Amino acid sequence: MVEVTTPGRRIHLNAFDMTCVAHQSPGLWRHPRDQSHRYKDIDYWTDLAVLLERGRFDALFIADVLGVYDVYQDSALPSIVGADQIPVNDPLMQISAMAAVTRHLGFAITVSSTYEKPYAFARKMSTLDHLSKGRVGWNIVTSYLESAARNLGLDHQVPHDRRYDLADEFLEVCYKLWEYSWDDDAVVRDQAGGVFTRPDGIRPIEHKGTYFEVPGYHLCEPSPQRTPLLFQAGASAPGRAFAAKHAEAIFITGTRPEVLRPKVADIRRRLEDNNRDPRSVKILPLITVITAATDEEAQAKHRDFLHYASYDGALALYGGWSGLDLSGYDPSQPLAYVETEAVRSAVEAFTTADPDRTWTPREIANWVTVGGMGPVLVGGPRKIADELELWADEADVDGFNLAYAITPGTFEDLVEYVVPELQRRRRVRTEYDGATLRENLLGQPRLRDDHPGARYRR
Amino acid sequence: MVEVTTPGRRIHLNAFDMTCVAHQSPGLWRHPRDQSHRYKDIDYWTDLAVLLERGRFDALFIADVLGVYDVYQDSALPSIVGADQIPVNDPLMQISAMAAVTRHLGFAITVSSTYEKPYAFARKMSTLDHLSKGRVGWNIVTSYLESAARNLGLDHQVPHDRRYDLADEFLEVCYKLWEYSWDDDAVVRDQAGGVFTRPDGIRPIEHKGTYFEVPGYHLCEPSPQRTPLLFQAGASAPGRAFAAKHAEAIFITGTRPEVLRPKVADIRRRLEDNNRDPRSVKILPLITVITAATDEEAQAKHRDFLHYASYDGALALYGGWSGLDLSGYDPSQPLAYVETEAVRSAVEAFTTADPDRTWTPREIANWVTVGGMGPVLVGGPRKIADELELWADEADVDGFNLAYAITPGTFEDLVEYVVPELQRRRRVRTEYDGATLRENLLGQPRLRDDHPGARYRR
Repeated sequence: MVEVTTPGRRIHLNAFDMTCVAHQSPGLWRHPRDQSHRYKDIDYWTDLAVLLERGRFDALFIADVLGVYDVYQDSALPSIVGADQIPVNDPLMQISAMAAVTRHLGFAITVSSTYEKPYAFARKMSTLDHLSKGRVGWNIVTSYLESAARNLGLDHQVPHDRRYDLADEFLEVCYKLWEYSWDDDAVVRDQAGGVFTRPDGIRPIEHKGTYFEVPGYHLCEPSPQRTPLLFQAGASAPGRAFAAKHAEAIFITGTRPEVLRPKVADIRRRLEDNNRDPRSVKILPLITVITAATDEEAQAKHRDFLHYASYDGALALYGGWSGLDLSGYDPSQPLAYVETEAVRSAVEAFTTADPDRTWTPREIANWVTVGGMGPVLVGGPRKIADELELWADEADVDGFNLAYAITPGTFEDLVEYVVPELQRRRRVRTEYDGATLRENLLGQPRLRDDHPGARYRR
Repeated sequence: MVEVTTPGRRIHLNAFDMTCVAHQSPGLWRHPRDQSHRYKDIDYWTDLAVLLERGRFDALFIADVLGVYDVYQDSALPSIVGADQIPVNDPLMQISAMAAVTRHLGFAITVSSTYEKPYAFARKMSTLDHLSKGRVGWNIVTSYLESAARNLGLDHQVPHDRRYDLADEFLEVCYKLWEYSWDDDAVVRDQAGGVFTRPDGIRPIEHKGTYFEVPGYHLCEPSPQRTPLLFQAGASAPGRAFAAKHAEAIFITGTRPEVLRPKVADIRRRLEDNNRDPRSVKILPLITVITAATDEEAQAKHRDFLHYASYDGALALYGGWSGLDLSGYDPSQPLAYVETEAVRSAVEAFTTADPDRTWTPREIANWVTVGGMGPVLVGGPRKIADELELWADEADVDGFNLAYAITPGTFEDLVEYVVPELQRRRRVRTEYDGATLRENLLGQPRLRDDHPGARYRR
């Protein structure tokens, strides 16, 4: 049998989770099959990692916030009662347990450059890269919640632009520690000669900048990837500029393929402006897939999920993301006609997609309650595979960042129904290509030569 | 058969390791059986955890430094070449992998209160306490290396007394987050009623102090132990005062039982002064055991180890601990006669034990090179068990903090030869008593009522 059709580009799969209850599906922890309350148990994470590796996912992406959502109703209580990303545990602690039961799956961990010291942070990531044998990624965020800033010793958030300025220097310090301080062959472990590390293979970074002063050596010997794979998701202008400079994979959000397409083109253009290969960065939009053996069963599953949706929960999350409290508006009031600029911008994400349509708080809540700001695809294996191929090709993206409606149910369904169909179409891998996350996602072991971190190499 | 003798008090076993090469045995990474260079591999840690649980150890204690030893020869190079605690990885990252393969072993992790933010740190420990189901301890340190301070954004170290002042307020914030912010029954997960967390079961801590301002809620729901088991090892006057207030287990060092005895009495007296039960805190001296099937084999093993000892490595570590560079002295020069106060205090730990004996740099190095500042016991199972019983009874301590000469060899020998002998004597447990670290080491699930952290409970 000869395969005659040329398959489209590889579709990379990334699972989106968070060390909390009902991550992007406010209220759905009330669904009898949802297990997200087990976010604090090791076996929730190890079982999930094994499942995702079976489905040949590139990575599990773990989101994080270091605060509570307290914009909606000007209070944290709606979020607390509804468990909307609170309680929320630390995202780094379960990684080694998952790495121990898998061999290929990557782990993209969210850590804010606003609240860490680069010298100590670089050691954490190098340690995880060693323990996982090169399967760690860092989703670089600069933090958006005021409530986090207040509890971490800052009166107010660092202003948005200055946060990216600081993040830029933070990365510079990290590159020096990860790429410059130790040579590949610095550790010789010469037992007879009594030399563990060659003194000429290691050097202090002598960094003295605006925000950080780090004179010393990196504390860790070189890890398999050195710099962890760099993910970024910023949608603002400075966020996009930062991503075009540093990111190796970018998470984006859009309600329809034709909304994504210009965003993707903009990213690839910015990469070129930075003298980087515009195809070298993987772009992965947020999407939620509800699937089953047939289209009808998938539709029924979707309807069932919506019974558990939380209006308050959706607007609590939306309040944190947008900074806007929609509690003062009638649920059925068309917001496009509310004459304040703030509310206009709050619905901009939606109106960009449908300029002629008005959105009400109820419609926004209905949208957000399954899969956050991303769209929901509902259908059997072939319909979903068709749609994902269409999205990938129309929007020119490299794969998807897949949120759950319920966990691990949504991921189990993907692995059972959708992955085999995409593998038959030769869009999803049947075996992993390499040993490390960067080898699997980007086809190379280290930062590319056109990446700014590469110039710190000796 | 009736047991007629009354056994002595329980001896608790604690293993002492660090995420680095040759932790307390500078140079012994050159021994062919030493595996400490595998400090960066998950299976080194998971194998060790399984071994220690088989030996009914209470906990694995992981030390840490966030800098390099650069006092000796006024340079970091001797440490770097000899791998004297450099490279050194983060101590928290391997915990969940070990927790996944054990059910009882505790993990005492070293984290400095000088370089963390309590709001984020409290979340890390709660997360690990959840993942391990209540088996996490925190070894509270305030950091002694200048080189760490310089790389973490401080021009010089925070002065010693102020560090303990800051640590004291750091603990206060943590107690409020761990003990006060959430009630035991705050999380109800009422699916029908849509209430995950009862709003009246949770409260912001509203902390406003000298060093920290933390207005908000703890981000984590209550973990099994809430406050992790608190370890401390400070030997200075403010360190001892801090331990007498906060510690539930204390690591100490002394060269002989009669040197330890007054130190232990002093700790128990200080506990009474703090209105705490002087027997409620477990005191564990540092000791290294070299054992084999017979006394002769153990002696041969010890002689073999000494071939791999590093003079420079020992004095590099000693330089970091004492702040003193002994590189300017002849190795055989008796230091007690050097007329500088600094050098006097450097050998004080030794001269306290033997006031009439002089110590040379060579003798100090020989002492330090196996087991750091602690003593080394050499012998077959019965001789070691006799000595450990003698130490426990003479010095009035509750167990031992056992360092390795080579790893995991030293721990394997302990589990094979010494633990069964101590179990026969009913000094070491044959089964674990409880589910959590605090239940196993202290016989209770939460902080005692006489502990200062308990008063933050509602």
